[in-house]
Amino acid sequence: MGKIKDTSAYVGFGDLKKVDTYKALLAELVGSLVLVVIGCGSCVSTLTAENPTGIAPTVVGIAFAFGVAVATMAQAVGHVSGCHINPAVTCGMLVARHISVTKALLYIIVQCLGGVVGAAILKGVSPDGVWGATTVSPLINSGQAFGIELVITFILVLVVFGVCDDRRNDVKGSAPLAIGLSITACHLVAVPLTGASMNPARTFGPSVIFNSWANHWVYWAGPILGGIIAAVLYTFVFRAPKPQERE
Amino acid sequence: MGKIKDTSAYVGFGDLKKVDTYKALLAELVGSLVLVVIGCGSCVSTLTAENPTGIAPTVVGIAFAFGVAVATMAQAVGHVSGCHINPAVTCGMLVARHISVTKALLYIIVQCLGGVVGAAILKGVSPDGVWGATTVSPLINSGQAFGIELVITFILVLVVFGVCDDRRNDVKGSAPLAIGLSITACHLVAVPLTGASMNPARTFGPSVIFNSWANHWVYWAGPILGGIIAAVLYTFVFRAPKPQERE
Amino acid sequence: MGKIKDTSAYVGFGDLKKVDTYKALLAELVGSLVLVVIGCGSCVSTLTAENPTGIAPTVVGIAFAFGVAVATMAQAVGHVSGCHINPAVTCGMLVARHISVTKALLYIIVQCLGGVVGAAILKGVSPDGVWGATTVSPLINSGQAFGIELVITFILVLVVFGVCDDRRNDVKGSAPLAIGLSITACHLVAVPLTGASMNPARTFGPSVIFNSWANHWVYWAGPILGGIIAAVLYTFVFRAPKPQERE
Amino acid sequence: MGKIKDTSAYVGFGDLKKVDTYKALLAELVGSLVLVVIGCGSCVSTLTAENPTGIAPTVVGIAFAFGVAVATMAQAVGHVSGCHINPAVTCGMLVARHISVTKALLYIIVQCLGGVVGAAILKGVSPDGVWGATTVSPLINSGQAFGIELVITFILVLVVFGVCDDRRNDVKGSAPLAIGLSITACHLVAVPLTGASMNPARTFGPSVIFNSWANHWVYWAGPILGGIIAAVLYTFVFRAPKPQERE
Ligand SMILES: [Ca+2]
Ligand SMILES: [Ca+2]
Ligand SMILES: [Ca+2]
Ligand SMILES: [Ca+2]
Repeated sequence: MGKIKDTSAYVGFGDLKKVDTYKALLAELVGSLVLVVIGCGSCVSTLTAENPTGIAPTVVGIAFAFGVAVATMAQAVGHVSGCHINPAVTCGMLVARHISVTKALLYIIVQCLGGVVGAAILKGVSPDGVWGATTVSPLINSGQAFGIELVITFILVLVVFGVCDDRRNDVKGSAPLAIGLSITACHLVAVPLTGASMNPARTFGPSVIFNSWANHWVYWAGPILGGIIAAVLYTFVFRAPKPQERE
Repeated sequence: MGKIKDTSAYVGFGDLKKVDTYKALLAELVGSLVLVVIGCGSCVSTLTAENPTGIAPTVVGIAFAFGVAVATMAQAVGHVSGCHINPAVTCGMLVARHISVTKALLYIIVQCLGGVVGAAILKGVSPDGVWGATTVSPLINSGQAFGIELVITFILVLVVFGVCDDRRNDVKGSAPLAIGLSITACHLVAVPLTGASMNPARTFGPSVIFNSWANHWVYWAGPILGGIIAAVLYTFVFRAPKPQERE
Repeated sequence: MGKIKDTSAYVGFGDLKKVDTYKALLAELVGSLVLVVIGCGSCVSTLTAENPTGIAPTVVGIAFAFGVAVATMAQAVGHVSGCHINPAVTCGMLVARHISVTKALLYIIVQCLGGVVGAAILKGVSPDGVWGATTVSPLINSGQAFGIELVITFILVLVVFGVCDDRRNDVKGSAPLAIGLSITACHLVAVPLTGASMNPARTFGPSVIFNSWANHWVYWAGPILGGIIAAVLYTFVFRAPKPQERE
Repeated sequence: MGKIKDTSAYVGFGDLKKVDTYKALLAELVGSLVLVVIGCGSCVSTLTAENPTGIAPTVVGIAFAFGVAVATMAQAVGHVSGCHINPAVTCGMLVARHISVTKALLYIIVQCLGGVVGAAILKGVSPDGVWGATTVSPLINSGQAFGIELVITFILVLVVFGVCDDRRNDVKGSAPLAIGLSITACHLVAVPLTGASMNPARTFGPSVIFNSWANHWVYWAGPILGGIIAAVLYTFVFRAPKPQERE
């Protein structure tokens, strides 16, 4: 994950001519789609007045579904696109110059498209109901919700940068699992408070399909700002030194 | 996991003469058996009218039991047979020419046999009851159930191909765990809706033992079609390029 | 984990003169102690008539506590003793000639001692009550309980042999975690039925401290027989071929 | 993680002149902050008399939140500071001479500061209530609570030393995950009994913000003593031999 130093490469019109770019966009589309089908799908309840033996979701189940969905897709298509499947991750990579402007814009568009298609598929195969829309708990205000989304996405993007730091040689184990479990931990906190979006595309999909837009700004502003802060902090302070600078 | 290019090798009558084929079949038998004993065993409830201090299963517990059972057997016998223990995985491998036709047919037969033996063992050691049969929730129709099984098995087989892609060098961590956790995530969604089979042999076993055949076609058609789509998509789009084709 | 071929080395009186043997025995003692403190400790309930805001344990919590306790100790002292901390594992290793008879007997003695000390420590720091004793559900008979303990310990020892097979080069990821999660999966099935011992020393400790001996034979015969069957099956069928025998 | 042999280096005034020390202190601050925000945040309940559709936390959710929060920060900033984020870990490292006295004191100060800032952030974004303060169950006395905190922190620090032992070459998989899951296991036992602090800074933060000091000594004395015992036991008994001393 090297830094793009050349200005023209950072603008990135050249990426439009590469077949790998279109493979990456398909990977981002499928990844975002799967994230929404699995993550939001784990929020479906079959416990209703008419179906008293149905099953209601739990926070632990939702937290592992979202986290492992991301780990799974990173494992499956990480080599194709980096498996951002999240505009907040893409924005963090953009400010750190790890992706071109052109490619970042295309990534964000297909991530949102994947979210919409995923939410549509989930609606098609699920019982009637609104599934996976993120809402702010009545116990907190939208400023607090913004703060929560900012902090949890800060944590996610910090660990993404940590496991992708190509100057480090101390990282063993599975990077996808480390990233996925950080999402699980954040969901364990924020599902009851904000729905634990951490990802504008994941919120955008169900918002379109179920026409649910309350506090929608929270789910763009919080994650993207948190992601950018993490990217800047990691790049300027925590990034491992170049090999020759090591003692 | 190379592609079998020679037609005669792909038909695979020669595999019948190799002792390794029979070791592999035993591994598939034991693996499918364990999957059913552990996975379906986690669905056993001891909470009854006569036993009010008994314990009912939870979706999270069932999801980890199935996922970790597959991870465990992949860890134990993955080097012997590849540990498909699932006809949908074997069908995906077949269309991608990673297994011969003869061996695939034998795998599927012993997987189903393992499912039946596993369900029989579970019945033998469990309290009275029907345990582990997959059923479609009354809140959805069988077409929706087919869609769910297709999508979740697509995800499973996509990650199987991702971690087994011998051209990738970015995959660290445990492949069995990555595969197992993808199964866990899919179960967190689909247990209340379809029972989250993802595997015709896993459904076939309890169906035989408990004579439970409602919507049985869903659990063959959905997983196998999902597995084949994932195999084709991965092989033709997401597979890593050959080393010499890399920039 | 090579095979001990020499008969005198397999009897193992010489091990009594090695300081490493005594370090290993201390590691087995501490490991078994921790397993009982954490595993059985996760079964403690603070929900009582007098303490209605207390918390009752769940099967998922107990399952992860036992599994991760074993993973943790294997990570901490695996290089010292192999971290069997379970007579069933030691018996499997003994029949496969991976440990001497002398050392195996000493291991089993200190494992049981560790179980007793762990149960005593847990009693000392816990609210009043009987914690961690394994009991057979009233819904099954002791023969069924024997079958359950046999099957789940078979699975555990099969994966232990799988991850320790020094001829394999396909095993990546954490061996301790793979073993620990197999224990978690088995607990998700068997906690409500037999208490999911899988380990005579883990049952022996609370049995001594709480004088609880009903069906005690089940928890020695089932795990040890299951462990020996797995050791034989793995060694004679599933063990990876020697490098020179590979095609 | 070598031993600091030189006395002047062990006192460590020289560390005050290194920019890396200040980077490490920032990493400890952010890490401790995140641990409290996520771990204590998972204890927030939205289930109240006025909000009957709210969600109460579970022990399993809290246990994974704390464990994975530590794993996540170790993954993100472990190369910068070692990611102790816990005075008990730092004290263990100090007695084993893996950190200088000066640096250890600074670490502990910023860990406590991080705990306070984390608790303040959590208060700012949460519903009204006291979140994350550790309390002793009314079913046990403070001596028992001390014993629990000692034992669970002993386990944590033992595994920290195990995965950081630079003479071992048998440790594969993710060290951060191994450490994090050991924390999860200990929480599954101790959340209902002591709140499962294992970490004076994690308790100190909410104590300052919510002015909650009952049994506060337990959460310093237990973890630090447990950590030191583990450090001594590992260093003098379980540490892998030097390569040349191996047979
Ligand atoms: Ca659900
Ligand atoms: Ca169960
Ligand atoms: Ca408990
Ligand atoms: Ca919560």
